[in-house]
Amino acid sequence: MELLLKDSIHLSLELLFKAGMSSLSSSVLEVEIFQYIDAHQNDFIKDLKEWVMVESDSVQAHLRKEVIRMMALAADRLSLLGATVNLVDLGSHQLPDGQDLPLPPVILGELGNDPQNPTVCFYGHVDVQPAKKEDGWKTDPYTLTEINGNLYGRGATDNKGPVLAWINAVETFRALKLAMPVNFKFVIEGMEEAGSLGLEKLLEEEKQHFFSDVDYIVISDNLWLSKKKPALTYGSRGNACFLVEVECGSKDLHSGTFGGIIHEPLMDLIALLDSLVDPTGRIQIPGIYDSVAALTGEERKLYESIEFDLEEHKNNSGVKKFLYGTKDEILLHLWRYPSLSIHGIEGAFHEPGIKTVIPAKVIGKFSIRQVPHMDPLVVKQQVVEHLENVFSKRNSPNKLKVSMPLGAEPWLANVNDPLYQAAKRAIKIVFGEDPDFIRDGSTVPVARMFQTIIQKSVMMFPIGAADDGEHSQNEKISRYNYIKGTKVFAAFFLEISKLHQHLRETSNTETSNL
Amino acid sequence: MELLLKDSIHLSLELLFKAGMSSLSSSVLEVEIFQYIDAHQNDFIKDLKEWVMVESDSVQAHLRKEVIRMMALAADRLSLLGATVNLVDLGSHQLPDGQDLPLPPVILGELGNDPQNPTVCFYGHVDVQPAKKEDGWKTDPYTLTEINGNLYGRGATDNKGPVLAWINAVETFRALKLAMPVNFKFVIEGMEEAGSLGLEKLLEEEKQHFFSDVDYIVISDNLWLSKKKPALTYGSRGNACFLVEVECGSKDLHSGTFGGIIHEPLMDLIALLDSLVDPTGRIQIPGIYDSVAALTGEERKLYESIEFDLEEHKNNSGVKKFLYGTKDEILLHLWRYPSLSIHGIEGAFHEPGIKTVIPAKVIGKFSIRQVPHMDPLVVKQQVVEHLENVFSKRNSPNKLKVSMPLGAEPWLANVNDPLYQAAKRAIKIVFGEDPDFIRDGSTVPVARMFQTIIQKSVMMFPIGAADDGEHSQNEKISRYNYIKGTKVFAAFFLEISKLHQHLRETSNTETSNL
Repeated sequence: MELLLKDSIHLSLELLFKAGMSSLSSSVLEVEIFQYIDAHQNDFIKDLKEWVMVESDSVQAHLRKEVIRMMALAADRLSLLGATVNLVDLGSHQLPDGQDLPLPPVILGELGNDPQNPTVCFYGHVDVQPAKKEDGWKTDPYTLTEINGNLYGRGATDNKGPVLAWINAVETFRALKLAMPVNFKFVIEGMEEAGSLGLEKLLEEEKQHFFSDVDYIVISDNLWLSKKKPALTYGSRGNACFLVEVECGSKDLHSGTFGGIIHEPLMDLIALLDSLVDPTGRIQIPGIYDSVAALTGEERKLYESIEFDLEEHKNNSGVKKFLYGTKDEILLHLWRYPSLSIHGIEGAFHEPGIKTVIPAKVIGKFSIRQVPHMDPLVVKQQVVEHLENVFSKRNSPNKLKVSMPLGAEPWLANVNDPLYQAAKRAIKIVFGEDPDFIRDGSTVPVARMFQTIIQKSVMMFPIGAADDGEHSQNEKISRYNYIKGTKVFAAFFLEISKLHQHLRETSNTETSNL
Repeated sequence: MELLLKDSIHLSLELLFKAGMSSLSSSVLEVEIFQYIDAHQNDFIKDLKEWVMVESDSVQAHLRKEVIRMMALAADRLSLLGATVNLVDLGSHQLPDGQDLPLPPVILGELGNDPQNPTVCFYGHVDVQPAKKEDGWKTDPYTLTEINGNLYGRGATDNKGPVLAWINAVETFRALKLAMPVNFKFVIEGMEEAGSLGLEKLLEEEKQHFFSDVDYIVISDNLWLSKKKPALTYGSRGNACFLVEVECGSKDLHSGTFGGIIHEPLMDLIALLDSLVDPTGRIQIPGIYDSVAALTGEERKLYESIEFDLEEHKNNSGVKKFLYGTKDEILLHLWRYPSLSIHGIEGAFHEPGIKTVIPAKVIGKFSIRQVPHMDPLVVKQQVVEHLENVFSKRNSPNKLKVSMPLGAEPWLANVNDPLYQAAKRAIKIVFGEDPDFIRDGSTVPVARMFQTIIQKSVMMFPIGAADDGEHSQNEKISRYNYIKGTKVFAAFFLEISKLHQHLRETSNTETSNL
């Protein structure tokens, strides 16, 4: 049955194009929609400014109340659209220090239930990464500031801007009193930057209820590969985060009074961290590459056609030189090979100036971006064994503790799915060119989660540009991308509706013919 | 002339003992003094509480105003004693980020100018190391709190307690209307924990003025070797502090978007830091041990007689095992061999939780405790060459910058000096036992500075115990040490006065005999 359906979809797409639906100039309806969006762009930016103002940082415990406030704000916005909104309580979680912290609720929203329409579920998040002015921001990170057509602020592109673009698009249909082309479902969470705690359980629980009639899942939580050319994303790497704790005792020591006679925990930790990656970028943990899927010729070919400006990407990063010299090598190492990054050390002296201290307990933080078919649990075992092995050779009396508080799996989709074809058409209408089909080096565990649990097509539909600087200082989304993003989502509603209905009709005819 | 004087001093000490001055039971005068101190101990503790309350942290720029406030408080206290006080303006200094920050003034105080009395110059500091409750303090670091006879608070032992003990001792003579046995000079600064900026220049300038009539210099800014047994200190290690900066660009990067294709600055830095010391504690920088003075048989013998409880010292530190197993090896590596400690990294993620960031600019911080006859400038050159060599092997396109913002030299004194003999007698009177003659693994650059510039005998006269935890969480001084410390300083005034006058008389007689 599954095979038959797949065949019928391919056949239908063919019929569709033959039927002249491949004409991609804007319809009268689209012109009306786009005019409304252009006319209201400053209102849309004002909404984004209000959202950015909330320091909804889910990483730092003391800001949790701000995340919860942000969820209430987002719920109110959906209610204004006319959606039915349910704020689902997820309970609490325990921090490494034993503190119990409430989880922000997840928003489950619904708008429309026309059986003729496809049901599209949109996922986004409204929590953000930590940001402080003194980290090197030119403007206050929580005051959205427009400079030369760019809207600077924490969360502008990751992910408050895209969530609002989707809402703006729906709002446009409502304001123009147009029939909704699709039924909408919303899943909006506030723990994405801290591992989407509780979300997986919720999806499992709601699989047969809230999600039972969902046809397609759209996630807009990543960036284009270029500053100018749109893209659709069909895969993302996983993320296994590690904490390596080395401890010599309960109190920090003076380097004059104890320097030279003790095994310093920070020296042990530095040796452990130094054993992870060689200067060429190759991970040194034994066995770590064993499960990486072999690169097929067909797959390699996909990479050749991608438009990717190496020089531009290097300029975006600010670095002088990459580890690899060609476009293909760079993309392969970003998308389908694992990488290991070291993020920092907790417990050591980190402020400006000098403190002649020997820290008693230090925690190194690194993560491994995994790819199919690496298993986080196997990765964890390999990391623990490797670190314990390196540590044992140092004959240190200190205590070593390795943990993996987060182990998100990679995700991979099929680009021939109708969901991708509809988005491709919407992009052609709004941007005048076809998108690149790309993967993402960063992790969107929800993509994998939705595909595994809900078992419907999942697509990542980015609207931010490559230089938006998500997670970085001076994060931004351009006015152009935010407003064109709103338009492309509106166009996508029409395209997926047409494609879905055409497919269903064709499928019905074919089924009756069988 | 110098030789003659030296000979006459040795001769005089001999005569002194023959003359029965070696009797070390308390005199009526001493009993009166000690009773006063006992009766007023709570007042003395109240004064210390007031001083600890001021967050006079000289390391962090934003607290500089508190250091300046602390200097004014200390100046007022000296004025109350009847001292003439001069707050000497030292101008300002520039931080690594270009910010210009005022230096706290140095207090030069004088009390008494009886030509019959020796002039003793006391040096102390009232600035402190950074401290935050959340670093692991059981009590608020800036609220002096007595628990089981210990007074907990930042600066309690380093160095506000000892400075006040000296002032309390002088106050006792004033309150009892006793003739001052010595003329006092005070040098109290507020930048000791940040490298005593400006002090050296001031000593040079005042050498022929304020310091011209100083006979002896006493510094009380270190700890005993044991929790119970008093000590006098005749040497300290130097301190060369290093900053190692590695930078890939101006903005932090997302580990998903750039992980696997760039040379991460933090990985470069970790490799550099990992190249400094091997797991046995031996510094790996070529040539670093070349100038270390050879250990003589006579010197080694000194170590054999020192009372030092290895087990107790280990308990104080909280560590399970030291790098060496015997008392002699431990003391040699703490006092007369160099050590290298790594303090931390600035610019990387240091907070609890996880941030999937690739930091763009990181600054490693380490220091080398030097010993005679290492030259800080040679050490700097060796460090820079070594790090550049390790870095060049990594083929990293990142920028490396190594600097040595602080290069304090070691110090060594002669234990046969009358200053040490007077302190030894005072200790015997107050504590009932002879002190250990010890060195200090930490750095007191002023000791070296005073000896080099003022060219008078310098002694370090600690009153804090080995487990006081200077620079650490839960720093304390015990009530016992603080009050006995006050007594031992008062007794020392009497002893150095007697010894000095006797020496002068003997010296005069001998000179007239020549």
